[in-house]
Amino acid sequence: MARKPFRPSLDRYPYHAEVSTRFSDNDVYQHLNNAVYYQFYDAIINQHMMEKTSWNPALKRGEVLSDNAFQKGLVVASSTEYLEIIDGFPKPVTLGLAVTRLGKSSVEYEIGVFQGDKSLPAKALGRFVHCFVDIDTGRTRPEGMPFEIRDCLAKLIVEPLPKL
Amino acid sequence: MARKPFRPSLDRYPYHAEVSTRFSDNDVYQHLNNAVYYQFYDAIINQHMMEKTSWNPALKRGEVLSDNAFQKGLVVASSTEYLEIIDGFPKPVTLGLAVTRLGKSSVEYEIGVFQGDKSLPAKALGRFVHCFVDIDTGRTRPEGMPFEIRDCLAKLIVEPLPKL
Amino acid sequence: MARKPFRPSLDRYPYHAEVSTRFSDNDVYQHLNNAVYYQFYDAIINQHMMEKTSWNPALKRGEVLSDNAFQKGLVVASSTEYLEIIDGFPKPVTLGLAVTRLGKSSVEYEIGVFQGDKSLPAKALGRFVHCFVDIDTGRTRPEGMPFEIRDCLAKLIVEPLPKL
Amino acid sequence: MARKPFRPSLDRYPYHAEVSTRFSDNDVYQHLNNAVYYQFYDAIINQHMMEKTSWNPALKRGEVLSDNAFQKGLVVASSTEYLEIIDGFPKPVTLGLAVTRLGKSSVEYEIGVFQGDKSLPAKALGRFVHCFVDIDTGRTRPEGMPFEIRDCLAKLIVEPLPKL
Repeated sequence: MARKPFRPSLDRYPYHAEVSTRFSDNDVYQHLNNAVYYQFYDAIINQHMMEKTSWNPALKRGEVLSDNAFQKGLVVASSTEYLEIIDGFPKPVTLGLAVTRLGKSSVEYEIGVFQGDKSLPAKALGRFVHCFVDIDTGRTRPEGMPFEIRDCLAKLIVEPLPKL
Repeated sequence: MARKPFRPSLDRYPYHAEVSTRFSDNDVYQHLNNAVYYQFYDAIINQHMMEKTSWNPALKRGEVLSDNAFQKGLVVASSTEYLEIIDGFPKPVTLGLAVTRLGKSSVEYEIGVFQGDKSLPAKALGRFVHCFVDIDTGRTRPEGMPFEIRDCLAKLIVEPLPKL
Repeated sequence: MARKPFRPSLDRYPYHAEVSTRFSDNDVYQHLNNAVYYQFYDAIINQHMMEKTSWNPALKRGEVLSDNAFQKGLVVASSTEYLEIIDGFPKPVTLGLAVTRLGKSSVEYEIGVFQGDKSLPAKALGRFVHCFVDIDTGRTRPEGMPFEIRDCLAKLIVEPLPKL
Repeated sequence: MARKPFRPSLDRYPYHAEVSTRFSDNDVYQHLNNAVYYQFYDAIINQHMMEKTSWNPALKRGEVLSDNAFQKGLVVASSTEYLEIIDGFPKPVTLGLAVTRLGKSSVEYEIGVFQGDKSLPAKALGRFVHCFVDIDTGRTRPEGMPFEIRDCLAKLIVEPLPKL
């Protein structure tokens, strides 16, 4: 299972966030527990959307201008390559967010996980696929994801990394 | 991003565990939060090893018979395909565990996530790669993973699912 | 800070639940992290209500028979006395639930936390106060908590433990 | 259960920290889940000690100058009064830390939980009691907690709030 993955630097990512870690994030070996990375992905992805668009996870139909806006993102796939150990608490973690594929209703994000010196390459690489569906019906809409969200995600598009 | 993944049934998996869910596992849409699945994978994998071998995460060098036994599993990759919504709390979740690749120092697990009627196919499919390293040096050992763990993991081997 | 708290046994509690633990629940000392106990309290309290009444956390006003039923429980106070170390993962934990005070809109629960031999006394004692409010207004209702929930909670009433 | 607790302001607390919230911290009502507060207490308490002293949770006996330094803090009690709803993710939370009692081996912390405008009073009040014990024996030491930690905690002492 040899692997020499390409390790991007923070400047690959159009959107950044710093997140604090918690004592309870560390496992018995004092590393950041592997499941916590996914809490970070969820955080940066939703934070980005809430900051850049009118979307929020508690939308009510009466509050949106059109049915197109009344959608939520369902997670259909997620993955992580853990490239280097992250010390975790009490050190904070820096995240970079990019879009590597933007479909009609779905988006594939790439998240770079960094710690410490920002010139160092990513210590982990995450991927996260959201599919937008109508909040009531749970089905994709004929016109695809909310227009406002598509415009916002389009600004994060980068070239996908070479396949391993 | 069309996908028609093969959805295995619980009898594919040589080892099963039932885990309880928590109110805090549910997200604002009342679904099991996507990061919680990874807590479940960690739980069934470690539970299996602790039940079937003398290994435990708090091993001290003086307590093991040989340096070969003084290793820990580092997570090098993990992923999930979320195939169907899982209601989460208060319903429990049933997990199935199998090994799809057994290398010298590393193992790839597949985890099927089930809920409710056990004749139904998996609602999610997880993959998890552990690489065994010496607890002190953090490096793989020339002879590979602990012999006792290899023997135990060999009993979980199944054919990998067809690639999508 | 000497303390000799009274340590009740499981038979004090009218309602029991067994919950599984997760690898990520253990802290660096291999104990159950102190915050996880509160996830357990939330779980047993909500599980009990969802099992015994028609209440659920995703109620919509149109789905309930009366405004009285359209309420949620807000946590106003919680506490734990950690009386003995709990090993945590992979061992499960047994919880006992009782009501020590039932007001018009609020309820005080006591939760006993047990592990292993069920004749042993509680390893931790939790307290949890819920105040019921209208889901839309966030205020208590003149008639108090939902009648169905009051009837259900009344069956859990026990004498409070002697004050320390 | 009427309560009019005194609600301190951030300047009561000698030590402050800002922590980020996560999407998974929010419950189905979009509030910060009640158990997450305790993850925050753990974080600020341990962060303060690791920043101000040579202590860290992974101490090994051979690494410390004296047995006095080879101790860890066991949580013996914790509690929260939830005074006002906290919105949670994506808003960060500001914490204030003080010591309200400093015994020979134990310390009682008070944590104020704030959000948004820093001139507003605490939205929650936490209490957390740590008892220091020898890491190997699990027992308090005759001379009490590590001297370095006592000196550091003494700088956080404030008057306890009036009892309710």
